[in-house]
Amino acid sequence: MEELKTVIKEQGKVLPGNILKVNSFLNHQIDPKLMYRIGQTFAEYFKNLGITKVLTVEASGIAPAVMTGLAMEVPVVFARKSKSLVVKNDVYSAEVYSYTKKFPNHIYIEKQFLTSDDKVLIIDDFLANGEATKGLIKIADAANADIAGIGIVIEKTFQPGGQYLRDQGYNVLSLAQIASLENNQVKFAN
Amino acid sequence: MEELKTVIKEQGKVLPGNILKVNSFLNHQIDPKLMYRIGQTFAEYFKNLGITKVLTVEASGIAPAVMTGLAMEVPVVFARKSKSLVVKNDVYSAEVYSYTKKFPNHIYIEKQFLTSDDKVLIIDDFLANGEATKGLIKIADAANADIAGIGIVIEKTFQPGGQYLRDQGYNVLSLAQIASLENNQVKFAN
Repeated sequence: MEELKTVIKEQGKVLPGNILKVNSFLNHQIDPKLMYRIGQTFAEYFKNLGITKVLTVEASGIAPAVMTGLAMEVPVVFARKSKSLVVKNDVYSAEVYSYTKKFPNHIYIEKQFLTSDDKVLIIDDFLANGEATKGLIKIADAANADIAGIGIVIEKTFQPGGQYLRDQGYNVLSLAQIASLENNQVKFAN
Repeated sequence: MEELKTVIKEQGKVLPGNILKVNSFLNHQIDPKLMYRIGQTFAEYFKNLGITKVLTVEASGIAPAVMTGLAMEVPVVFARKSKSLVVKNDVYSAEVYSYTKKFPNHIYIEKQFLTSDDKVLIIDDFLANGEATKGLIKIADAANADIAGIGIVIEKTFQPGGQYLRDQGYNVLSLAQIASLENNQVKFAN
């Protein structure tokens, strides 16, 4: 998505530790019109797959996910984060290790919002090691929901999450793929 | 907003402790089309005030805020939550006591995203005691930003937050006002 790449080039800041800071339009300040077009792009790519629900994780996934749900005319469910494991009969949960924060989070979704009748589209803002996405897959699997696709706003292709998901056979669309952040420069794949 | 009241009546669940659970369309599962119309309603009411930015708090405020930002064509900034006080030169922060969770949270916004040139519209999903809204007001005041209005999806008028904010002179629009949850019944104001 060329518009997204342009915004990343203009506003993204590279920090030590292969961190790309995009908090001027994606995960602190949000550009709603850009999110709208991101939602339309995901909806166009994943159309005709019978998707019934969009899944994401709070907080940064919500804006792109809700715009995708708007374009696809389906509900959005965001997994909630918890410091401790949530073991209740009425929730599906998964552990998600945060490489940035160096500790495990737990995420959970109430069972009533995800069933074996659902075909889900997973949406997230970033894909690096893929921990959050794997957590959502684990939750969808526990509900026996089909996973019809995975839509990522920004993928770091030099980290293993994207390759792992494609090797597992998932239909992954990343709107911007970053091949390297070396020398504080954003280098896109292809 | 009649559509919202209808959805609350149909899907809202009253739990002990004056809790109204609306997680089927607002704060766990989200109805994107309803959020879109909520955003349009806020944008219509607060138009012509020169608003430059929508402010909210993660996570449940993001969906209505981003739809409001879309309709008003302005950026959205969501305050991030932290268990501990964030004291850094580059952030404004405030303490927010959670009556539901019985402990204080801290919220913060990076200074670069809020300045004295801004006229902000505060958006949140719930207004009860008003703690989250007061936290956002404190942050906006610290930035010397003008507060042009406060838009709330669901206000519990039997708790003091709304009255407090109106007494302070703020322009508050609540799309659904709940006067009582007694006997597990949702009773709207007026």
